[in-house]
Amino acid sequence: MKQLKTPLVVLNFKTYIEATGKNAVRLGEICSDVSRDAGITIIAVPQSSDIRPVVETGVPVFAQHIDGASAGSGTGHVLAEAVRDAGAIGTLINHSERRLTLAEIDAAIRAARRTDIATIVCSNNIATTKAAAALKPDFVAIEPPELIGTGIPVSTADPEIVSGAVDAALGIDPDVPVLCGAGISKGEDMTAALELGAKGVLLASGIVRAPDPKAALMDLVSEI
Amino acid sequence: MKQLKTPLVVLNFKTYIEATGKNAVRLGEICSDVSRDAGITIIAVPQSSDIRPVVETGVPVFAQHIDGASAGSGTGHVLAEAVRDAGAIGTLINHSERRLTLAEIDAAIRAARRTDIATIVCSNNIATTKAAAALKPDFVAIEPPELIGTGIPVSTADPEIVSGAVDAALGIDPDVPVLCGAGISKGEDMTAALELGAKGVLLASGIVRAPDPKAALMDLVSEI
Amino acid sequence: MKQLKTPLVVLNFKTYIEATGKNAVRLGEICSDVSRDAGITIIAVPQSSDIRPVVETGVPVFAQHIDGASAGSGTGHVLAEAVRDAGAIGTLINHSERRLTLAEIDAAIRAARRTDIATIVCSNNIATTKAAAALKPDFVAIEPPELIGTGIPVSTADPEIVSGAVDAALGIDPDVPVLCGAGISKGEDMTAALELGAKGVLLASGIVRAPDPKAALMDLVSEI
Amino acid sequence: MKQLKTPLVVLNFKTYIEATGKNAVRLGEICSDVSRDAGITIIAVPQSSDIRPVVETGVPVFAQHIDGASAGSGTGHVLAEAVRDAGAIGTLINHSERRLTLAEIDAAIRAARRTDIATIVCSNNIATTKAAAALKPDFVAIEPPELIGTGIPVSTADPEIVSGAVDAALGIDPDVPVLCGAGISKGEDMTAALELGAKGVLLASGIVRAPDPKAALMDLVSEI
Repeated sequence: MKQLKTPLVVLNFKTYIEATGKNAVRLGEICSDVSRDAGITIIAVPQSSDIRPVVETGVPVFAQHIDGASAGSGTGHVLAEAVRDAGAIGTLINHSERRLTLAEIDAAIRAARRTDIATIVCSNNIATTKAAAALKPDFVAIEPPELIGTGIPVSTADPEIVSGAVDAALGIDPDVPVLCGAGISKGEDMTAALELGAKGVLLASGIVRAPDPKAALMDLVSEI
Repeated sequence: MKQLKTPLVVLNFKTYIEATGKNAVRLGEICSDVSRDAGITIIAVPQSSDIRPVVETGVPVFAQHIDGASAGSGTGHVLAEAVRDAGAIGTLINHSERRLTLAEIDAAIRAARRTDIATIVCSNNIATTKAAAALKPDFVAIEPPELIGTGIPVSTADPEIVSGAVDAALGIDPDVPVLCGAGISKGEDMTAALELGAKGVLLASGIVRAPDPKAALMDLVSEI
Repeated sequence: MKQLKTPLVVLNFKTYIEATGKNAVRLGEICSDVSRDAGITIIAVPQSSDIRPVVETGVPVFAQHIDGASAGSGTGHVLAEAVRDAGAIGTLINHSERRLTLAEIDAAIRAARRTDIATIVCSNNIATTKAAAALKPDFVAIEPPELIGTGIPVSTADPEIVSGAVDAALGIDPDVPVLCGAGISKGEDMTAALELGAKGVLLASGIVRAPDPKAALMDLVSEI
Repeated sequence: MKQLKTPLVVLNFKTYIEATGKNAVRLGEICSDVSRDAGITIIAVPQSSDIRPVVETGVPVFAQHIDGASAGSGTGHVLAEAVRDAGAIGTLINHSERRLTLAEIDAAIRAARRTDIATIVCSNNIATTKAAAALKPDFVAIEPPELIGTGIPVSTADPEIVSGAVDAALGIDPDVPVLCGAGISKGEDMTAALELGAKGVLLASGIVRAPDPKAALMDLVSEI
């Protein structure tokens, strides 16, 4: 697995129409442009069926989800080998919109290791951040569910949860950096997150659904 | 939605390595070749991340699964619009390896209608075939779970379940044709299925993992 | 299975504290009293751990959920034999707060038949009412999810969905009566439901959380 | 919460007919008798609907599962308050037959703390044992899934996984003792488990389905 340079900006395309198909490609190009101009790692996280065309824009791509199972009888499941083959270099695991059992999270991390792709395990509070860190993913991303999609940035609304998660993960495994998400969209939110010890941000609607996603993304990375 | 000419051969790529990435493309080409030579509709059902390159082989492509939700906050879910945009013209729903709640099956069928793609709802016995038919999908595919992957063809091992499912669906809605699956791999299995009233077959390992998938597929359609 | 005299009033205790433990027993007694006075069948639907003491009040009791599996390795699951042994004479299946896959609904109905207990399968719209009726449960209960817990009675807010569901079930199987739920709490809601062809009502918060549940229940059955 | 004296013997009744209804009560009496005679804590884990009558035998009782949600709209779910009110003093969480998402495990532990009942979180390997320990339950019980129900005792078949889990939990939180399960049924299995650092065992079929459960249970605790 190639080492990812922090701070990371991880842009989750979710299933937004504004980030599906041709729109996904356009957004991938924006990520690629802003990343090059700002010298910041920006990762695009499109739907599975859009991984290939988004990879072609040159932006590093993560899958939104993988299953832990090995190849075989997994109709409708997401095989680690398949997304890696499509060009993804990493994956979200256990996003709040795609929760997995503890055993499945562990299996998905192992599937990612098996295929040499990076992992960001999502958590919802400090306790589950610790548990996620104990599984040794490449990153844990804490997103308090009550702030997701609100536009209220976690880094200013609830700074203790960000610094608490950073400390908690550190206490379990010093090699597991923490990202934070929920409500992040502006440069000041990003700066606040980094000052609290986060190594990057996970964000979605604040950029994807912005009137001008490129301007929004440039603002996000402007203060770093 | 374009009308699909029956009998249908629906080839589920599952998450077999033999049907992932480059192998998926190769298998799509085989489907495309055999379909053209034999004059039989063969549908390829690859993983989401392989839909685009398989579509390029010219074979009609179905997704393995879609979620019923509309566009938005659906990280890790499969949006009907996304697979349609990738080139899929239909989808499996409720495969035995990706079971959905009754409400989700109904929602997925509505999502497919909204995006004008065809639906094959999978069922496991005569009762659930009736229930599935009541939701008015384009096809119901009955697969007795105890025969899946065994190589024992449902059409000879349990012919009553195939004819029973055909009659049951007919009793609910004469416009919902039945496919049958589980253990199908040879021309005689296919013929037996059609004689029992099925309008096609859903199959996977018998072709995907055959030593020579093209020969296996040619044998399958040889007696029609 | 003993035949249940319609119209039915089915009172879902959910996991309300007002209907847990001693409160469940008190509410069971109220159901029993009102049922006797009004000559109307009232069914209490407590949590599993409260089935036994509520049965002792003399009210007929249904479980909130059963699993379809047979006895064995089912830690944390609800065995049909266990709730029947505890005194339940029926069960809800596929409530909107405990959705099951289509195959599981079918299996749960079979488990109920095996143990000779009655079944009410919940549905969320007309299409899923048809599908549920095709599985031949003893009742289908339609509850439009957008009205659950609102206090807006489905029988007046959306009468077409009630009469549509009654007709739809009838079209599939004339022996499957329809109950309706969501927002029902007053005598006039009940009367409206019966006039639309429903054979009873499924209700919860309107009675359970009423300041005086006995008075609320008496009002509910006052116009029949 | 009352402190539980270790070593613990936790007997999971699952949904075995041999441990349902009257059989559950009889088995509870056996647990109670053997516990008193041997001076060992034996915990009975019956189905929800059997908690009350098993509690009356005098044996300490755990639930097989609780949900994390608070009281309210949880039809078919298991409220911590309900099982506590029925007399349970603890609960299994995340048994391999009732897996939960990471967020649900955390919520269930919080629900148990809220109601002052003890928690045993089940795990399937060393990594998930660490993660479970990070959530601070009262116990973690490791059960390698490949050995469950085989009669091959984990403590002799795979001693490293037991001692590894003990060390792993210790490394995360020295206050979280480890139980082990899978294949345990004899006194020598129990002794081996304790020598490897486990503070008790979780077992089921080896006792529940033994020709003479009382003799089997007496043998289990005979060497301590």
